Amino acid sequence: MKNVGRGHIPFGWAGPAAGGGIFQIIKEQGPISRTRLVEITGLAKSTITLHVDKLLDLGLIIEDLGSDPITGRKQKELRFAFDAGYTIGIDLGVTSLDVALCNLGSEIISLASEKLTINLEPKTILDKIFSAVNKLLHENNLESKQITGIGMGFPGPVEFSTGRPVAPPIMPHWDLYPLAENLIEKYKCPVFVDNDVNMMAVGERHSGIAKDIENVLFIKVGTGIGAGIICDGELYRGSLGCAGDIGHISVEGVEEGCPCGNIGCLEAVAGGPAVATRATNAAKNQESELLYQLWNEKGIVTAEDVGELAERGDLVCLEIIRESGRMVGKVLSKLVNFYNPSIMVIGGGLSNYGDRFLASIREVIYRRSTPLATRDLTIQRSVLKSQAGVIGASVTAVDELFSQQNVAIMVSEEESLK
Amino acid sequence: MKNVGRGHIPFGWAGPAAGGGIFQIIKEQGPISRTRLVEITGLAKSTITLHVDKLLDLGLIIEDLGSDPITGRKQKELRFAFDAGYTIGIDLGVTSLDVALCNLGSEIISLASEKLTINLEPKTILDKIFSAVNKLLHENNLESKQITGIGMGFPGPVEFSTGRPVAPPIMPHWDLYPLAENLIEKYKCPVFVDNDVNMMAVGERHSGIAKDIENVLFIKVGTGIGAGIICDGELYRGSLGCAGDIGHISVEGVEEGCPCGNIGCLEAVAGGPAVATRATNAAKNQESELLYQLWNEKGIVTAEDVGELAERGDLVCLEIIRESGRMVGKVLSKLVNFYNPSIMVIGGGLSNYGDRFLASIREVIYRRSTPLATRDLTIQRSVLKSQAGVIGASVTAVDELFSQQNVAIMVSEEESLK
Repeated sequence: MKNVGRGHIPFGWAGPAAGGGIFQIIKEQGPISRTRLVEITGLAKSTITLHVDKLLDLGLIIEDLGSDPITGRKQKELRFAFDAGYTIGIDLGVTSLDVALCNLGSEIISLASEKLTINLEPKTILDKIFSAVNKLLHENNLESKQITGIGMGFPGPVEFSTGRPVAPPIMPHWDLYPLAENLIEKYKCPVFVDNDVNMMAVGERHSGIAKDIENVLFIKVGTGIGAGIICDGELYRGSLGCAGDIGHISVEGVEEGCPCGNIGCLEAVAGGPAVATRATNAAKNQESELLYQLWNEKGIVTAEDVGELAERGDLVCLEIIRESGRMVGKVLSKLVNFYNPSIMVIGGGLSNYGDRFLASIREVIYRRSTPLATRDLTIQRSVLKSQAGVIGASVTAVDELFSQQNVAIMVSEEESLK
Repeated sequence: MKNVGRGHIPFGWAGPAAGGGIFQIIKEQGPISRTRLVEITGLAKSTITLHVDKLLDLGLIIEDLGSDPITGRKQKELRFAFDAGYTIGIDLGVTSLDVALCNLGSEIISLASEKLTINLEPKTILDKIFSAVNKLLHENNLESKQITGIGMGFPGPVEFSTGRPVAPPIMPHWDLYPLAENLIEKYKCPVFVDNDVNMMAVGERHSGIAKDIENVLFIKVGTGIGAGIICDGELYRGSLGCAGDIGHISVEGVEEGCPCGNIGCLEAVAGGPAVATRATNAAKNQESELLYQLWNEKGIVTAEDVGELAERGDLVCLEIIRESGRMVGKVLSKLVNFYNPSIMVIGGGLSNYGDRFLASIREVIYRRSTPLATRDLTIQRSVLKSQAGVIGASVTAVDELFSQQNVAIMVSEEESLK
């Protein structure tokens, strides 16, 4: 059905499709009474009963006692059976791996995190993922066949339909690697792989500071820099799945080279490694006593160290943080004019620098974007922080598994068994 | 029904709503047979007949004889009754006014165009619009009550829900001017006002080079510079309706001031007036013999003159055009990384410079955007040219008037009359 865009009915109104639609309303707006479902859908009470009973039979929803939001009177309410299964949410970063066991409501039950480098062989990283998943399952007395689905974020462009990384810059050994296939083979369940920042944006909109907001930009500033775009409530991936790839947008007035071959790329001049390099140079030049001491002791200065020293009042570190924030702000000010979001959420490692970092980003955006585009704009830190990625990965798996279409298929398969 | 995003059923499946949905399929995919409607919707043949008969009764659709696309056999087909009414499409630019009388299929029947300046009083410009509309009606022996709806593009941010310009930069006298209200009062029909570039994007996607493409950026380069964003097939307006306002994004390495108070704004350094100023300076400095002669004769040099002289082989004019193209390309290269569109359509007055101008834009984009974002990217000129705006304005009016929801209301009102 080409040409039928948003706001139109995507497919038939025959029984199972209506069941799929009713399920979506229960999942997204529940707990909800049958009376309210009648109001929303315009369907007859008997029709709602028919569909709801099928969804209850399938175990997709649960009915229990709640209170009417207005009268407070006790009433039966329907909700998604979010405790009837488990997902695994995986967030593979350039320097870290986070794996979470979640319920179908994408609430984290257990979390395993470790440091690593994306430059390892894909096979080695997969083994680390397998170990983490197995550990989480073991701790919770679960078997792998109890996993309903897996979502995974990867720090580069991904073809969502195949679950394979596509031309990730600086990581050629990952190009077209069958990431989803490997996980499917291991756990015999559906697997959905997407860019890590997309997953974070989905997570933050599901249960973070961007909850229920329609037009959102999630900006990750860490080793890499990227954006996740929520357009009218849905993740926007672009024509080849690389929308939001802002790390290689050039920053005005900066001439440093980037491994991609261009100069002044945001990621190369404002990301974690650039901050660390700038601080190391300042240490070598003894521009700051604290930095010099640290470098002398440890032999290196990390982006995290810069944050800690700034916290302790080191002005050189504070200025390095501010400089990075201003460069991020320069690029974001252009995107604010173009995209006119309601909220920009700043996440990733450097967002831990806190208000100083955000103030520098805000300063440039308010100076350089048009007054109308910033009139109602909110610029906030991620509240889910390092968990945004695993939560978003779980949400993506659940949304795909229990889409309107898939639930309609479940309903119609159950009918044909009778 | 908050939280129910794209791909979900927006409201009930009761009779009239289904009628509205069937109408959308006929409007967007027609001519189409009843058999095909049964296949697409999954509804019973008798149900389709019921709804189709109502839509025929209402005069919204027409049934006539066509051929099956595969067998070639003659069959009855349904289509939108696009010749059953008229729209007025208005495109108000900074220096021009185009008004078109269209059928409901947004095909232009008659067009009236004139030069003007947006700096005139709103009342004066409204009078010009009224004259143009009356002239078109008169020429076609129509009365104003035969207008089904009006769409209008305005060269600045517009609050679509009220049809009022909002904080248009450099045009303070238009701020919150009741544009739609004035047109409604005059013609007693629904009026939809939006930013002019949004209208052009909608037009180009309806019947131009971006037909049926899901992710489109339409870039207008004229006196002003702006973008219209098509996201998954639908126009994206942003949180305050100012998405696509790229004219005040700064261009790297340019220090010229902009009336908005910032420096290096794309519109100020690459738009029509900037091109004319650059050419006038070159004429005064006698950098080009042809330019100098022209300036001596006419006293001014316009952006159009620059195109004509470049056509005649003037290298100075050619370089001015190329410079403007490269500046546009610098900003667009960032947006390509961010948005990953399938196609970028270049329209507006400067697009008449043709391939030389486009080549400069392409050159910078292919150099500065990521290889993945440009892998399948097409960069083309608008084929609708100066008519993109009026066609898009008409399409917007028709789509709003005959939305699924509005047709459902028409169907249910007709039912209640019986």
